[in-house]
Amino acid sequence: MTRPGLHTLTGGRGLLFGGDYNPEQWPEHVWAEDAELMRAAGVNLVTVGVFSWARIEPEPGARDFAWLDRVLDLMDESGIAVDLATPTASPPPWLGHRRPETLPVDESGHRLWYGSRNQFCPSSPVYREHALALVEDLAARYAGHPALALWHVGNEYGQVCHCDESAEAFRTWLKARYGDLDALNEAWGTTFWSQRYGDWAEVVTPRRAPYIINPSQQLDWRRFCSDALLDHFRAERDLLRRHTPDIPVTTNFMGLFKPVDAWSWAREEDVVSNDHYPDPADPLAPARTALTHDLMRGLAGGGPWLLMEQAASAVNWRPHNPPKPPGRLRLESLQAVARGADGLCYFQWRASRFGAERFHSAMLPHAGPDTRLHAEIRAHGRELRELARVAGRPVPARVAMVFDWPSWWALEERGRPSDRLNAVEQLFSYYLPFWERGVTVDLVPPSADLTGYALVVVPNLFLVSDADAGAMTAYVHGGGVLVVGPFSGIVDPRAHVRTGRFPAPLRAVLGASGEEWQPVEGPVRCRWAGGAEFDAHTWTELVAAEGAETVAAFAGDGRPAVLRHRAGEGVAWYVATMPEPDALGELAERALADAGVDGILPEPRHGVEAVRRGEILFLLNHGTETVRVPLPRPATDLLTGSAADGHVVLAPRAVAALVEPSPQTPPPGDDIEITL
Amino acid sequence: MTRPGLHTLTGGRGLLFGGDYNPEQWPEHVWAEDAELMRAAGVNLVTVGVFSWARIEPEPGARDFAWLDRVLDLMDESGIAVDLATPTASPPPWLGHRRPETLPVDESGHRLWYGSRNQFCPSSPVYREHALALVEDLAARYAGHPALALWHVGNEYGQVCHCDESAEAFRTWLKARYGDLDALNEAWGTTFWSQRYGDWAEVVTPRRAPYIINPSQQLDWRRFCSDALLDHFRAERDLLRRHTPDIPVTTNFMGLFKPVDAWSWAREEDVVSNDHYPDPADPLAPARTALTHDLMRGLAGGGPWLLMEQAASAVNWRPHNPPKPPGRLRLESLQAVARGADGLCYFQWRASRFGAERFHSAMLPHAGPDTRLHAEIRAHGRELRELARVAGRPVPARVAMVFDWPSWWALEERGRPSDRLNAVEQLFSYYLPFWERGVTVDLVPPSADLTGYALVVVPNLFLVSDADAGAMTAYVHGGGVLVVGPFSGIVDPRAHVRTGRFPAPLRAVLGASGEEWQPVEGPVRCRWAGGAEFDAHTWTELVAAEGAETVAAFAGDGRPAVLRHRAGEGVAWYVATMPEPDALGELAERALADAGVDGILPEPRHGVEAVRRGEILFLLNHGTETVRVPLPRPATDLLTGSAADGHVVLAPRAVAALVEPSPQTPPPGDDIEITL
Amino acid sequence: MTRPGLHTLTGGRGLLFGGDYNPEQWPEHVWAEDAELMRAAGVNLVTVGVFSWARIEPEPGARDFAWLDRVLDLMDESGIAVDLATPTASPPPWLGHRRPETLPVDESGHRLWYGSRNQFCPSSPVYREHALALVEDLAARYAGHPALALWHVGNEYGQVCHCDESAEAFRTWLKARYGDLDALNEAWGTTFWSQRYGDWAEVVTPRRAPYIINPSQQLDWRRFCSDALLDHFRAERDLLRRHTPDIPVTTNFMGLFKPVDAWSWAREEDVVSNDHYPDPADPLAPARTALTHDLMRGLAGGGPWLLMEQAASAVNWRPHNPPKPPGRLRLESLQAVARGADGLCYFQWRASRFGAERFHSAMLPHAGPDTRLHAEIRAHGRELRELARVAGRPVPARVAMVFDWPSWWALEERGRPSDRLNAVEQLFSYYLPFWERGVTVDLVPPSADLTGYALVVVPNLFLVSDADAGAMTAYVHGGGVLVVGPFSGIVDPRAHVRTGRFPAPLRAVLGASGEEWQPVEGPVRCRWAGGAEFDAHTWTELVAAEGAETVAAFAGDGRPAVLRHRAGEGVAWYVATMPEPDALGELAERALADAGVDGILPEPRHGVEAVRRGEILFLLNHGTETVRVPLPRPATDLLTGSAADGHVVLAPRAVAALVEPSPQTPPPGDDIEITL
Repeated sequence: MTRPGLHTLTGGRGLLFGGDYNPEQWPEHVWAEDAELMRAAGVNLVTVGVFSWARIEPEPGARDFAWLDRVLDLMDESGIAVDLATPTASPPPWLGHRRPETLPVDESGHRLWYGSRNQFCPSSPVYREHALALVEDLAARYAGHPALALWHVGNEYGQVCHCDESAEAFRTWLKARYGDLDALNEAWGTTFWSQRYGDWAEVVTPRRAPYIINPSQQLDWRRFCSDALLDHFRAERDLLRRHTPDIPVTTNFMGLFKPVDAWSWAREEDVVSNDHYPDPADPLAPARTALTHDLMRGLAGGGPWLLMEQAASAVNWRPHNPPKPPGRLRLESLQAVARGADGLCYFQWRASRFGAERFHSAMLPHAGPDTRLHAEIRAHGRELRELARVAGRPVPARVAMVFDWPSWWALEERGRPSDRLNAVEQLFSYYLPFWERGVTVDLVPPSADLTGYALVVVPNLFLVSDADAGAMTAYVHGGGVLVVGPFSGIVDPRAHVRTGRFPAPLRAVLGASGEEWQPVEGPVRCRWAGGAEFDAHTWTELVAAEGAETVAAFAGDGRPAVLRHRAGEGVAWYVATMPEPDALGELAERALADAGVDGILPEPRHGVEAVRRGEILFLLNHGTETVRVPLPRPATDLLTGSAADGHVVLAPRAVAALVEPSPQTPPPGDDIEITL
Repeated sequence: MTRPGLHTLTGGRGLLFGGDYNPEQWPEHVWAEDAELMRAAGVNLVTVGVFSWARIEPEPGARDFAWLDRVLDLMDESGIAVDLATPTASPPPWLGHRRPETLPVDESGHRLWYGSRNQFCPSSPVYREHALALVEDLAARYAGHPALALWHVGNEYGQVCHCDESAEAFRTWLKARYGDLDALNEAWGTTFWSQRYGDWAEVVTPRRAPYIINPSQQLDWRRFCSDALLDHFRAERDLLRRHTPDIPVTTNFMGLFKPVDAWSWAREEDVVSNDHYPDPADPLAPARTALTHDLMRGLAGGGPWLLMEQAASAVNWRPHNPPKPPGRLRLESLQAVARGADGLCYFQWRASRFGAERFHSAMLPHAGPDTRLHAEIRAHGRELRELARVAGRPVPARVAMVFDWPSWWALEERGRPSDRLNAVEQLFSYYLPFWERGVTVDLVPPSADLTGYALVVVPNLFLVSDADAGAMTAYVHGGGVLVVGPFSGIVDPRAHVRTGRFPAPLRAVLGASGEEWQPVEGPVRCRWAGGAEFDAHTWTELVAAEGAETVAAFAGDGRPAVLRHRAGEGVAWYVATMPEPDALGELAERALADAGVDGILPEPRHGVEAVRRGEILFLLNHGTETVRVPLPRPATDLLTGSAADGHVVLAPRAVAALVEPSPQTPPPGDDIEITL
Repeated sequence: MTRPGLHTLTGGRGLLFGGDYNPEQWPEHVWAEDAELMRAAGVNLVTVGVFSWARIEPEPGARDFAWLDRVLDLMDESGIAVDLATPTASPPPWLGHRRPETLPVDESGHRLWYGSRNQFCPSSPVYREHALALVEDLAARYAGHPALALWHVGNEYGQVCHCDESAEAFRTWLKARYGDLDALNEAWGTTFWSQRYGDWAEVVTPRRAPYIINPSQQLDWRRFCSDALLDHFRAERDLLRRHTPDIPVTTNFMGLFKPVDAWSWAREEDVVSNDHYPDPADPLAPARTALTHDLMRGLAGGGPWLLMEQAASAVNWRPHNPPKPPGRLRLESLQAVARGADGLCYFQWRASRFGAERFHSAMLPHAGPDTRLHAEIRAHGRELRELARVAGRPVPARVAMVFDWPSWWALEERGRPSDRLNAVEQLFSYYLPFWERGVTVDLVPPSADLTGYALVVVPNLFLVSDADAGAMTAYVHGGGVLVVGPFSGIVDPRAHVRTGRFPAPLRAVLGASGEEWQPVEGPVRCRWAGGAEFDAHTWTELVAAEGAETVAAFAGDGRPAVLRHRAGEGVAWYVATMPEPDALGELAERALADAGVDGILPEPRHGVEAVRRGEILFLLNHGTETVRVPLPRPATDLLTGSAADGHVVLAPRAVAALVEPSPQTPPPGDDIEITL
């Protein structure tokens, strides 16, 4: 049976637009106003019930669904679909009070209390029992309700607990992974520091200890924590599917969020959805956001995904929270559309008066509908209807970038050559030049089928399995172009160092190998073969060419810094340092040339993002200057209806959604100018 | 019956001078030397017994008063009054050992041990029982002792505890405040994040939780913590009053100290007293000190107050502790006199040889009486006798500044637009220009009767009640001038945001309202209407005039930054940003002009503080340069006897206490020069 | 009976060379390769079994020695001596699991778990019982094994625990020290802050408390912690000595490591050994290392010592870990030889594949023997054989520098004039100018016999006993030259301030005294009498000469900054501030002139360390430039065989080991040039 998915929702609705809706925070007379304002704003999807457990089950076993019935009925009457949440992210105080063993315990042994949210131990049978009983009743009650369009399981999973029940669950997981204690001792290398386990009962979570904890134990702990939460998700999902086989199920990710291995989660969902809050103080936020969106598209197998939460303006949880200036709300939302989102939702519809998120912006601010912010929301909702045709359309990419959670976890354990080597920053440093050049990138896991890509970039893959290293080698031999960043291929899936010259499993395909990692303090001068110089930083390696050509060398001693190796039908690059951004740009261009891949625009412009979705070319000006962008072909802007044959002029924060006319159409006149 | 007060002490003694005296740290032969040196230094008040619990009650129920009898007798013989402390701030080890439930527990569940001081749970019935039994016996013993002049309850109250007994006491307090759980749920907004309480037993203190804790719960917790300690104070006070109805009772504040709401405490005291330790590394310390002193005067209802603790020179508890240079001891002490203090006391008389405060300076240093420091103490004690006439004299002010503890608490909870907005710094930024201009300011609570003031400044009042907002409105309508700073009037006493345009309850009187808070990173350029420019920082708001004139606008888009509104007979100013100091000075001058208030000096001088107390004009040179200060009228310096008709020349750290002669006195010759 | 010592090992072997060897981490087939590579590298000593508890005792009471038999046999066959460790530093998980009371508890009450290393409570009888039973069996089994050459007890002792058993042990220690509670109360000054103890049971470790803890309690706690660990060492040592009276016993120090008082430990050892890891990012690391080595020589009573652990290249535990550049491994190892080391060992032989130290460099890296790093190890091993003659040779010094652990502990308690006064930095600031001038310094405890030294420097001795102060006075009177730095002689061994003018017990010999400590923020200008100016920083004192001449004064007010006093036959200097390095150099030169001591080289060169060991003059170029060093006399380089009469030219990181020929030898030709 084919599972329902995001198409189930967008089919009749086009792009989805809406947000979290928490009517239980307001008297019922406000609800009617909400519905009317939602309609006026073009809202067609709201998420309800995320934090309603205590409202639905005010005391153990009670059920108060009447208010929720009225909410769903109201939404249905208003033509607004409901993404109904299982309210299991935040148990009521009565659960923690009566069953304190459901409260999580941190690595130091501190119990975390209610009074905030998320206070549950992922391995608590009591928590699970109460959660599933409630989900069962919720599913039973709303199966068949005409407003119900999507299930939203829990919220932003990421809890961790070190209690004794968690330790027991960890042991169960380890038994399943390793079978017996000898295998565990072998995998964890317990001959080091006298850590041998003689009885399963001795094995605990990595609690506070006098010094650095066993890195293999830590890695398995992170795997377990992700799996333990996934097991919860699956249990709720299965209940929901039993009651409503036609309603898709999702849970909201948080982008490159360390606690959960999104690759393993995504395949259990019907819809991939994400919460994303770019930092307004970060000038590179647009590129980081693009990366996150590309990850979501990758998690969705290349298909559409749902931006479940974004902020209409400021958030409340950073220390200092400037609002979004006019136009940025729209710019960021359309960026998501351009990179594959079929739904654009906000946290939240109406700003709360009380609670920890009083000062988080909302679609409808405290000051009411007659405000700058709400006017932008309305205009944006209207405009999204013009873009209905993009729903479900693919975002083509010929370049893939590999990212892996266990490798991330393993890389960033204590006790390594340098804590300045950060998996996400390394990924981003390689992503940025492609984004700047208008080259669309797919994010993929190391186990992905790479054969469809012209170029595969591996910014860092500290931990790699034999199979994945083998597939990369085969990919190159089959004609692919592979770029591998430093400190990749170092450990196996147990986090054991692969002995011999590194990166051992990729040494042959790279035609090069190293013997020493050499972190550095200041910049290191490098030189392209026969040419210009550039700086690298933080990291160098003592590497020797074994068939590869030295494309760039360290200026000091002439040792290889960047190598290129023809292997089989393809080409493999190895980068034994961390070049500064311009040099990474040069590297990207050379690798793109090897792969025969061009950027979208003939002349990329600083700050202007270019990406194709379906037949539409999106141009988004993230910069603060008006920019004139030469076009590859004449085109018409879908948002304004204007047509241009040569250029588009984009004001700051302006967006063009260009359709290139079919050949018979007469060319349009001249430049078009696009403002907010 | 009229309560005794500070006048009870100063009546026969003039200004009080002395310090904490801990004779139990020394062999008795030292005591006689102490008494002699005290007399030589002009000491007339010592605080005894603050940390003597374990000495008096070496084991549970024992009483050893004999040594204390001898101390009080010796002081009496020496003509020195005693401020006798109830030694309840620091229970003996035996209490924590035998009754560990009396030890406090922090928000993470860590029990805090003895070995330092203050280790008691404010809600422990066992602690209270032991404390009150001891106070009862102490009061009974010393009632009628001729040395006894003042009771000093506890010390620097501020303890917090999260144990289960504290949770129970918190619930009792909440029941009294809210009556039933529905009201609590409503006030705390527990529909947010599924926090509804179904049983009182579920309610706990805001203990460590996974994320931001409910801000209304936090606010009530801070109220409770202050009240719980106040309840202790009251219980001890009532015992003392029963035994000694004619002896005034105090406890020592710590200035703008967050844990206790001094407005609610002060009205329970007979004497307001304070511990104040300006930071010698802070160039603005003189102004901050003036602010603190003005707060004490406000707490004393405009009457005199007691500087219970100051340092003779260095403290020991900052990381790096420079001493006070010559003359600063005197300068700081006279500053307190000028701003209303009738007593100038030090921690402590004789420097300890052991314990955690060995390296805190004292009136009598380790090196003995033949030292620079002790010589300054003696000279200062002598000089204070010359100033006896100021005792009890008022410090007149026509400007009031509003400050409120619950608003402070509410403002600084996590999860707000910017954590760079700090209640005390905002208060100080408005206070500084008045201090620099020699305009005396009274600190008042928001519920104060404002009618006597020409100008009322509200630097920040994030939380405001309807009644207080109404009184401010009425004040303006009645002819007052009101200045309101940004992010005021935002929440109600439950910390719920007041919906609609802000500041909702002051919108009418301000003739302006806003829809969006817009914290900023760098400086923001502003322009006075038709005039000069200035920078603002950190914070801006999107505000519209609704009757007010735009006095200053943001240079970028011309939106209002400072507004002025004639309302009824008065004028209301609203400041929608944080102007730099010079611009706040300009603002202060304009508001003073509206109010018809002048500074004390015709031409204020940088670093020279000017304040009148009674008929004396104090001029204090906090700067590092000699300054020539033009006088409003001819005057004679009380400290030197010199007379000047035009100017006073003040060396660095010099002080003049000027009396303006009655008209018939012939004018004095010329300038007078005043050195240390 | 004479104890065995380091000579027992070096007698037949010359200098020792090797490292930690952890064969249990590798399959046995690797062991044979290890032995062969060790031999090829000149390894003659390996440390085995440091972390083998769980391997030897996989379950309580079991013993698996078979693998260890094979390891020792293999080493014996390979001619490599074994430093056999008692594996008691890291108990197996089964101990913590079955007997959680053996796990340590921090000052906040957090229990520290297994999963890392060192998780034992030093005061746990259960831990001790298990540890000693194992040591007994280990000693019995290997007594007489021909490979056994040295016992290595535990590892890097430094554990601390605050559990109830630790509190009980602390009380026992206190009872032995003080006899009765009155003496304890007196020593701890418990009249301060109501801390009087009425029953021994009340006394606990200094656990987390509301504020600053009693400094005398803290000082005794540090004494106890050092002693409790020493007691463990002694217990193991005694067992080992019973079984193997001829095998020397050591444990590895960590240089200037605060938790253990090395002076009290060293006298219980047969061999002094140290782990030393200079920070490659610290340009002063060579001088700091020299200081540490001189401390080890002092701990060894002037005799040879063993460098038990150093890194072949990078470590893994700093945040960022650059490797050692070529030649630095050799340079640092020869520096230790020059300063008295008779053994040069590394952590570890073969780099681990797993565990928390995977990324710590080793003698044999992951990449194998055919590497830059291993080639340097081999060359270094070879070269050490050329230097066999230095084994056991003394390092002569005429200058002593005093350093004391209890004084260090007492100085750095909270609540003092400045936390910028750091015992080790103060020591180093005085050490540096002597090192730069090629003047060898012995580190000695305050109780040392000073009579053999021409100059004694006391950079800081905050805590001093009457006896030690008396001995210093007598030393000067007898003709010695003494230099005393600021804030010395302040407290007695109970940490009580010595009242009166400071430094009270040294006032007479210094001919000067002070009344006030005056920490400062910025630099303070000083002036040598009749001459040049210099800056001092952080600290000044208000001091008066009482017979001393003012050698340098504070420029501002002319008060004495540096004083010099002829007392008896000698001279005493007092430095009442912290002069900048050049001024400390000037001071050192003047004091050396008073003492009649010259540096080794006629013209010291920046970055070139000069030190004599036996008849060899070592010159080590720590700088980055090639340097030409004039020699005092013609000499021949032992390492290259070259001879020079006037100069040696040293490349960066080059070392010369010069032997000055006897008079009849004809002079060699000219300069010699020495490279890596």
